[in-house]
Order: sequence, then structure tokens, then C-alpha cells
Amino acid sequence: MSQYNFTFSEVMTKKPKPLGKQLQFGKYFTDHMFVMEYHHQKGWYDGKIIPYQPLTLDPASMIFHYGQTVFEGLKAYKSKDGETRLFRPKENINRLNRSNARMCIPEIDPDLALAAIKELVRIENDWIPKQEGTSLYIRPFIIATEPYLGVSASKQYKFIIILSPVGAYYKEGINPVRIAVETEYIRAVKGGTGEVKTAGNYASSLIAQEKAEASGFAQVLWLDGHDKKYIEEVGSMNVFFKIDGEVITPELNGSILPGVTRNSVIEVLRDWGVPVVERKILLEELITAHKEGRLEEAFGSGTAAVISPIGELNCNGEALIINNQETGEIAKKLYETITGIQYGHLEDKFNWIDMIE
Amino acid sequence: MSQYNFTFSEVMTKKPKPLGKQLQFGKYFTDHMFVMEYHHQKGWYDGKIIPYQPLTLDPASMIFHYGQTVFEGLKAYKSKDGETRLFRPKENINRLNRSNARMCIPEIDPDLALAAIKELVRIENDWIPKQEGTSLYIRPFIIATEPYLGVSASKQYKFIIILSPVGAYYKEGINPVRIAVETEYIRAVKGGTGEVKTAGNYASSLIAQEKAEASGFAQVLWLDGHDKKYIEEVGSMNVFFKIDGEVITPELNGSILPGVTRNSVIEVLRDWGVPVVERKILLEELITAHKEGRLEEAFGSGTAAVISPIGELNCNGEALIINNQETGEIAKKLYETITGIQYGHLEDKFNWIDMIE
Ligand SMILES: Cc1ncc(COP(=O)(O)O)c(C=O)c1O
Ligand SMILES: Cc1ncc(COP(=O)(O)O)c(C=O)c1O
Repeated sequence: MSQYNFTFSEVMTKKPKPLGKQLQFGKYFTDHMFVMEYHHQKGWYDGKIIPYQPLTLDPASMIFHYGQTVFEGLKAYKSKDGETRLFRPKENINRLNRSNARMCIPEIDPDLALAAIKELVRIENDWIPKQEGTSLYIRPFIIATEPYLGVSASKQYKFIIILSPVGAYYKEGINPVRIAVETEYIRAVKGGTGEVKTAGNYASSLIAQEKAEASGFAQVLWLDGHDKKYIEEVGSMNVFFKIDGEVITPELNGSILPGVTRNSVIEVLRDWGVPVVERKILLEELITAHKEGRLEEAFGSGTAAVISPIGELNCNGEALIINNQETGEIAKKLYETITGIQYGHLEDKFNWIDMIE
Repeated sequence: MSQYNFTFSEVMTKKPKPLGKQLQFGKYFTDHMFVMEYHHQKGWYDGKIIPYQPLTLDPASMIFHYGQTVFEGLKAYKSKDGETRLFRPKENINRLNRSNARMCIPEIDPDLALAAIKELVRIENDWIPKQEGTSLYIRPFIIATEPYLGVSASKQYKFIIILSPVGAYYKEGINPVRIAVETEYIRAVKGGTGEVKTAGNYASSLIAQEKAEASGFAQVLWLDGHDKKYIEEVGSMNVFFKIDGEVITPELNGSILPGVTRNSVIEVLRDWGVPVVERKILLEELITAHKEGRLEEAFGSGTAAVISPIGELNCNGEALIINNQETGEIAKKLYETITGIQYGHLEDKFNWIDMIE
């Protein structure tokens, strides 16, 4: 029990848990959820853990019309010894509050948010899958609920946490993907909302994602919204390139999401003494480096896949094949190191793990 | 009854209707709503008119996470003779379908959408306020309802129409507003979603709107997201300027919303023989024209206000006072002409009115 004393109403009948092989991403949800209300005259109040259930919302609720909302995504992992391990949850909570500030949503006490996550995960302990590579995905989100059609910040919100057991991202070992460079649509631009985690960024990206999938690509690589010349991110991942032995990644410029995994990759590389630089990266620069045989590796980073090696970057039909479409050494070692810390095979030397008792 | 035979379940007890003076924008809703479902294996089905009631949605519904949604806004007006008049509803329905295409939402049969609007408004006839300047605001919207956390287009949607009686926009006569030029945040950029009506555009605009209101301004003027040099729109309105006797408005460039009122203004001006040009407009050009005394008028256009004269454009503290902060002649005449057609005081020479029997 935390100091917050959230009310807990237990479900009468627990759901059957999906079997290992049925596990996918974000399809099944656990027996309970956390809900807390906000009213502009009361602040945040009435945090409680209740049976997983539908939300009942006035059709005029602002979330349906003006999309005032933020979310986060993080995971709980089971170690071989049965420990429950959260990976850098405070980073996600801090990002949630940065998203709140941009979207005019009231801040949430970070300690309360962490306590809510921990208590809910503790209650749903049986739902955390145990096989290597599986985890319990944690989705905190806030939605504007005032029933009012004026375009203004809502006076009422709900903060909700739902949990979903997810299967291993790599069912047959870590595998490079083919990525299409998107040259028509853009994801974000400085002054917009690209650097925060809000629904509209994802809604606007669907059309490019569908186009890429229709041509057999796994994801799109986004270029900057200003010049369409600089690399931003890959789908819902940050992106890294190894050129001439140096690892480079786009700098945080106001339009890309500051990924928790991105930051972890940078810290691990520094720890290893591998040169790593955050800066602007021209698409043209990658094309040239590839031509000259200097583009050694490319990979994405994100909570879902941890590390996702890129085997091909396709720019309007021109294919850059990277590292023979094989997983690069740095990508492999980063994957093993970060998942090793997450699952507890490796020492938590960066102090990234928050245990749930 | 339309050919569509929507099921109708009538409420048991009707709500009290707000009195004339209580009327605001988007605060009160009528007794019934229209709801239609979409499933990827069935298409759109089960259109029905039911008592106004909360939506019951799984907390994993995609609308809450990835904001896949579109909406429209139009009005029904009561003439002195008691006719119910819709203003250019087909334009809104066509725009809804253009928004759908951009947001990967399945198209809606335009005839069905129009029939649904008409039947719902017909049923709620008593809710249409009768005083001059009042109207019944119609809000069709579509939300993604599949309970799935993968970033992809939803396989399930709801199309909903709600109605809200609204008071006169100008309670004490048409009145110029003060507008702040926004130079930090941006609303949209080509390749994004600025030209469609989707929630994310509005969510991302709240922070600038709050900043402007805190300094005593009614709305913000958005500059383009690329160079922050060109004029885009004003809050939720398109914008027009009269310089040297010519009326100019930003061209439809992929990032501004193609307003139905904007188009109506252009048609009326052409009909009058007033020169009107759609083109790029530099903020600098307005500042120069103002200095030289050639910026004769400025006004916004939109469904809510119809025409909203601009008395001041404030650019980081530098105030351009326009037409002595009085309503310009063109703005006044446009307001009278367009509202005259809407309420039936003037002949519908452009064939803009769709009657509800
Ligand atoms: C747009 C975008 N970029 C990058 C990331 C990676 O961030 P993280 O490493 O925190 O999961 C995500 C996923 O959260 C994302 O949605
Ligand atoms: C961003 C934006 N621009 C312009 C408009 C004006 O469009 P309309 O004249 O169709 O109401 C609106 C309102 O619908 C809007 O939301």
C-alpha cells in the first residue's frame, strides 16, 4: 500500500489470461484499471483502482472534438527470480508532465503517478507474462472530459492507467526491417506538438504508415517538416546511424519525441566509450555515406522493440541496403544490454530499475 | 422520413430548453442524437436516432490514444415564417469526407449524412431558437472505437451527430476584436493535417489561445509553419484583408482550413464586383500597408461568427490599429448579406439554402 490509499474495488470474476502464443501488442487488458478525476475547482481527486470497464462519457466531451489528451507507454518485466521490474518509470512520468504542459492539461504529482502505476501492477502481478521477451505494457493517459464545444482547455479530465500483457517483439530473433522514407506527409514541425506524446501526432501519421505498409515496408522514416531534408524519427521510434565508427542520432529539436530508450542507448554507448553524437542529420548525408560504404549500421529505439535494426532505407524507390540486411554488432549488443538490464540478467549499473514489492 | 429509415427511439422525458438569455455556444444539447456504427467487415450500419446519452467506450478505444477523428460544424436557422434553413450542408459533408480521407477513416455516403442531419434537426425542431442571431449548431463527428493500442487505422468507428442551440454571437451588435499574431507556436504545415477538421489541430492550438487570452486578445493569428512569415488563419476562422480597395485572403495551401464561410465571402464579393484575390500574404506586407494607411479592413470568417471584424493586429507588442477599431463597410455588408440569406430576409440567389420540411 502506498501513502496515497487509492480505493480498490476488486473484480468479481477474473478474465482468462491469454496463453503465451496468443499474446500480441495491446489487444488484451488486465482485470483492473486506475482512474483519477480532475475538476478545475478541486484539482486531481478520487484516485481508485476498479474493475476494467468501459468509460461513460458525454458525446460532447472535449476529447472527442478537440483531442486534448496525452499518453505514455512503459513496461513491467518479470525476472527469472519472479521480481517485477519497471524500466525508468520516472522518465515516462516526467515526459507525461511535459506533454501536459504543452497540451494545457494540469500537471500530475509524479510521486502519485508512480504510486498508481506500482499499485496497479502489483495487483495485476499474475498478468505479467514470464517468457523471455514478454512484458506487461503500461498505458497511462489523460483525456479532457468537459462536455463543451468551445475551443478552450477543458475544466475536467480523467487520468487512467490500463495494462496489457504483450508478447515478445522478436518471435524469431531480432530481425532487420525495411523502412520507407516519407517525402510527402510530415509528422511534426517545431512550434507544433512533435516533442510531446499526444494523440494528434499519431492520427496524422496513419496515412503515411498505411502507404508504407501497402508497399511492403514496416515503418516510415520521417523527415523534418520544414525542409524535408533532415532525419527525424522512424515510425514510433527514435533512430541511430553508425557512420565511420561514430553513432549519430537526430538532436532534440522540438519536433522529435525524446525517447526514454533513445536516452538509454546514448548512456550505454557513452559507458562503452563508443563515440555518440546528437546533431542534425541530412538524408543526403546518409545517401552519400551509403554510397561510399561508410553507413555501417542503422537502428530504431523505442519501448516496444527496444532496438530495431534497419536493413533497408527506401527513398522513393532508391534502396539503401544497410549491413547486408543483417543485424549490426552495435544494435545487437545494445539490445542485449538494455533487455539484460530490464529482465535482470545484467547488473543495473545505471540505476534504471524500479522494483515492485 | 428519408429513404434511409433510421430507427428512432424517442426520449421519455424531454429536457427543459434553455431560455434565450442563457444560450451560449456548445453548452446545451438537445434531446436526441444520431449514431451510426462502422465495422470493417460490415461497412457503415445501424444508423439510428436515440435519446441524447453518454457513449460507453472501452478505455483502449483508439480515439483516446491516437486521436483518429474528424468533425464538422454547421447551423440550422429559423426564418421569421418558421422555416428551418440549413446553410450549405453539402459543403460540410464533402469536407467531412475529405477529412476522412486524410485521417484514414472510411467515407460516409453524403446523401445518408445529409438525410441524418435533416431528420435529426426535424425531430428537434422545437429546439431551434427563434430570436435573431440565434441558431441550432450541428456537430457531426466520427471517432475510432476499436479497443487496440497498435498505431494503425481503427477497424471500428462511430458517426455521431449532436445538436446545440446557440445564442447570438454578437449580443450588442457586431464588434471588432483584438488579435495577437502568434510567433512561437504554429498551427499546421503542409503535409500535416491543417487543411482538414481533426481534433489534433485544435488540441495543439490551445496553448497559443490561452497565452493570447491572458494578454486580453480574443484570438491568435496563425503564421505559416514553414517560414512564420505568411498569414494563415485567425483562431477558428479564415481571414481577409482589404488593401487598396482589393480584398485578399490566404490561398488554400494545404495547411489552412477551406472554410465554407470563406468560400461564401469570395462568391458574394465576386457577385458585387469587388476585386478579391486568393494568394500568399506576408505579415510584413500588412505591416507596410498599415504604415502607409492602405490597410483598410481586416475580418475573420467562420460558421460561429459569420464575419468577425478585426480592430487590432498585435505583433509582439506592436499594435496595428485597423479602421479606427470600427467595423468596416465590407465586413458589415458581408455580415448582413450572408446572415440575410441564412435567416431568409434576403433572396437565396446563390442557392445555398437547404430547407427542412
Ligand atoms: C513518436 C515516437 N518516437 C519515439 C518513441 C520512442 O520513445 P520511448 O523510447 O520512450 O518508447 C515513441 C514511443 O514512445 C514514439 O511514439
Ligand atoms: C481552423 C478553422 N479555420 C476556419 C474555420 C471556418 O470554417 P467555416 O467557415 O466552414 O466555419 C473553422 C471553423 O470551422 C476552423 O476550425
